Amino acid sequence: MAHTAGELAQYLGAKLFGDAQAEIVGVANPESAGARDVIYVDSSRHVDRAVTSAALCVIVPAGTIVPEKALIEAENPKLAFAKAAAWLMPRPLFRPEIHSTAIVAASARLAPNIRVGPYVVIEDEVEVKSGAIVDAFCFLGRGAHVGEDCWLHPRVTLYPGARLNDRVEIHSGAVIGGDGFGYVSDAARHIKFPQIGRVEIGDDVEIGCNSAIDRGSLGQTRIGPGVKIDNLVQVGHNAQIGERSILVAQVGISGSATIGAGVMLGGQAGLGEHCTLEDGAIVGGQAGVLPGKVVHRGQVVWGTPCRPLESFREQFAALSRLSKLVKRVAALEKLACEGQGREDVSR
Amino acid sequence: MAHTAGELAQYLGAKLFGDAQAEIVGVANPESAGARDVIYVDSSRHVDRAVTSAALCVIVPAGTIVPEKALIEAENPKLAFAKAAAWLMPRPLFRPEIHSTAIVAASARLAPNIRVGPYVVIEDEVEVKSGAIVDAFCFLGRGAHVGEDCWLHPRVTLYPGARLNDRVEIHSGAVIGGDGFGYVSDAARHIKFPQIGRVEIGDDVEIGCNSAIDRGSLGQTRIGPGVKIDNLVQVGHNAQIGERSILVAQVGISGSATIGAGVMLGGQAGLGEHCTLEDGAIVGGQAGVLPGKVVHRGQVVWGTPCRPLESFREQFAALSRLSKLVKRVAALEKLACEGQGREDVSR
Amino acid sequence: MAHTAGELAQYLGAKLFGDAQAEIVGVANPESAGARDVIYVDSSRHVDRAVTSAALCVIVPAGTIVPEKALIEAENPKLAFAKAAAWLMPRPLFRPEIHSTAIVAASARLAPNIRVGPYVVIEDEVEVKSGAIVDAFCFLGRGAHVGEDCWLHPRVTLYPGARLNDRVEIHSGAVIGGDGFGYVSDAARHIKFPQIGRVEIGDDVEIGCNSAIDRGSLGQTRIGPGVKIDNLVQVGHNAQIGERSILVAQVGISGSATIGAGVMLGGQAGLGEHCTLEDGAIVGGQAGVLPGKVVHRGQVVWGTPCRPLESFREQFAALSRLSKLVKRVAALEKLACEGQGREDVSR
Repeated sequence: MAHTAGELAQYLGAKLFGDAQAEIVGVANPESAGARDVIYVDSSRHVDRAVTSAALCVIVPAGTIVPEKALIEAENPKLAFAKAAAWLMPRPLFRPEIHSTAIVAASARLAPNIRVGPYVVIEDEVEVKSGAIVDAFCFLGRGAHVGEDCWLHPRVTLYPGARLNDRVEIHSGAVIGGDGFGYVSDAARHIKFPQIGRVEIGDDVEIGCNSAIDRGSLGQTRIGPGVKIDNLVQVGHNAQIGERSILVAQVGISGSATIGAGVMLGGQAGLGEHCTLEDGAIVGGQAGVLPGKVVHRGQVVWGTPCRPLESFREQFAALSRLSKLVKRVAALEKLACEGQGREDVSR
Repeated sequence: MAHTAGELAQYLGAKLFGDAQAEIVGVANPESAGARDVIYVDSSRHVDRAVTSAALCVIVPAGTIVPEKALIEAENPKLAFAKAAAWLMPRPLFRPEIHSTAIVAASARLAPNIRVGPYVVIEDEVEVKSGAIVDAFCFLGRGAHVGEDCWLHPRVTLYPGARLNDRVEIHSGAVIGGDGFGYVSDAARHIKFPQIGRVEIGDDVEIGCNSAIDRGSLGQTRIGPGVKIDNLVQVGHNAQIGERSILVAQVGISGSATIGAGVMLGGQAGLGEHCTLEDGAIVGGQAGVLPGKVVHRGQVVWGTPCRPLESFREQFAALSRLSKLVKRVAALEKLACEGQGREDVSR
Repeated sequence: MAHTAGELAQYLGAKLFGDAQAEIVGVANPESAGARDVIYVDSSRHVDRAVTSAALCVIVPAGTIVPEKALIEAENPKLAFAKAAAWLMPRPLFRPEIHSTAIVAASARLAPNIRVGPYVVIEDEVEVKSGAIVDAFCFLGRGAHVGEDCWLHPRVTLYPGARLNDRVEIHSGAVIGGDGFGYVSDAARHIKFPQIGRVEIGDDVEIGCNSAIDRGSLGQTRIGPGVKIDNLVQVGHNAQIGERSILVAQVGISGSATIGAGVMLGGQAGLGEHCTLEDGAIVGGQAGVLPGKVVHRGQVVWGTPCRPLESFREQFAALSRLSKLVKRVAALEKLACEGQGREDVSR
């Protein structure tokens, strides 16, 4: 459906310069945009890209001028652009449907206005709430719960009892609620520690393709509201992840790790068992947090084992000058030997 | 089915103090337990959790007293608890069934008492033995073998010819027997080296969600009995993994790596091609073993490239004092210059 | 179908010594070969393996003699062997079929000679071209394109609009075209940046099990022709990967990374956003390329953050001698104190 630049400015609470009637239907980058796409520029350095774009409506930082375009000023143009995209292109309306090939247990409770795709399997006592989309090949194990407006892309597995709160989006191949990895060993073999706990995914969480979130062993694995998880991420049993934390691709979180709110984990970072990351902590890509370690509020850590970023930088710089240091020490030794009439001062 | 504390003590060969008739039906952690759940405490420090628990039966270290509970003494309470869990809550009995939507080739040989879930595909000459569970959306390629009492959770792929011995449990999304990653390059392109070998998974192996175990190129990939593999683990072609080894999440094992028995690989560890890990070796989380490297029996290694843990610790400690060392050298140089009447001693 | 050693030598343009009529049907390693399998030896050190093999035809380096065998001389025996394998064992011919359980949208355009397996879902406006195989449980989202002679193993997901050019092979569990991981945050929450771009996979690409290739946010993710991607690899939105590059298992590539032609990424390597790897660059296993970093043409880098291999080696060697250096400095300080009549020279 078409809107106008003026309506968008109003929605964003932003000032508009130029043609308020410019029609807009979507968003794009400057190069691929058509006349009715909204584009944005982050800084005046990129104004050229907007000038040559076919788009007629541009979100810009205050004071930026792009000739012949409708301009919407925003403090944070990228943020305004993301909001514009969500406003112009909401999740498409769907026709409620339980596909004829879906296998739904009689005891499952399905809200009337949901979409269940082909070849979905829904076991006993599952609940799927209003507005949810469950795409092809999803498996919802006994007693699983899918909250309002959730979206499960094709081929998502919920183990029995897995609980998704509202507006959770899970991408293809992800597995929620698998058995945790815990064994107790005697001389002969590894005996599985019971993996019978729960997993709860908070409101507005997004989970990427082929990620795996294990359920608790006895207690609960909990992903807080607003957490965003990229592809191929591993979250172990009993982990607790606070609201709005961000886990970039291939992060691995061991069992019983506790992560506060607004924590940021770079790609491929790894967290040992029972570590604690306080609110706002930032862990660099590929960094490793030792088991039991505490990363304090707002601290930025790097490396394996992780240390404060400034220490890491200092050490890294010193390391890169280390062979020079070796030469300097050798020169001092030579000097000392000469002073002492000795051959070797270091022994 | 309910048992009693006395029966459990007898099963464990352990001493019981208190009410032998206390009824027990499951296990739990102290906080969530009901009266009929068994709990455990590892040390006297956690007795408080047991005291306030609703559970009436507690597995404890010898000499530990929790008032008003039936106490079962164990040398290793966590181990006894795991055994209790397996005894109280065995894999549920199932009604043998081939779901009507399963597509089974005429030449497949299925034992009578198995469960095959909805939308399973079983190709020619597959064999599934007694007691096996094959959940929804599993794909068993031509000639695959599923041993007795195996459990394939929903959405497991066995490539043609993959062989699972008995009591193998494979979690959702795992792929067994995919093509190895091997190419021979000429000037123009990468030509695939034939990936036509086999893969064999030993008795009592467990493999986590979304893991991938490639088949051999010409020979065989072999996972020994009792090996436990976590989620998102990669095992390359022709790798050999000895019995009871443990691979934590996101470990990556390159082609032709040889791993002995009882080896422990921490999360995200990576092994290069043709490396050898002798029995009982321990590789720290995120450590990297270079191609061709040998880690000796029982050795503990860390870092990338990996080195003995004591060396890693020593180097890490020295590194964290490196900038102090730089200052000490500068001080010596200054002193030497003064002694020599020179400006700069390091050149 | 049986060929002869003579025909193979002719196909390879290679010299044959011995029985040109020796019948050959496949390839194997020396230990498991039958009489009609072709084997190869890389060097004279492995001649023994060929001597004791049942195989009658051996590809050898020039001048190598294995008694009583038909010998095919090759400059690169492993390459010749790979070519022989492809020639002797081409992808099996298949009977074109759309399985009766496949759900195909009316607007999908399927070439006549393709194979679509059981329980495949093909949405509106999908195109599948001649010779393609789409195995069980594959999901082809609206508008996806599958080129000639592609092979999608069981349980591959193509998100809407994903485009595979010709002869692309995708292994079980891989997901092509998932949403990129991009958010813009205001005080309260993470707002999803639009992930509406495209993904294009070039000719002759192979993608391993459970890998994930995200589509562009606004632009396009592009995997060049001939690229080979191992299992469990992550490729972020808008990444550009040049032709014939190789990504070993568990590599992670952040958004907007640009990778040239013939680049080699070792297992578990990680690339930050907006980094650039020029043609022929080599990144060691587990190495980490910082966001925005440029790795120049043909450079070999190691470590996190990555540096040239020679620097890494030098630093690593110096690090392993660091505790000795500390002792040498202490000895110098002692000497200097003695010379100065002071207790401590470092302060």
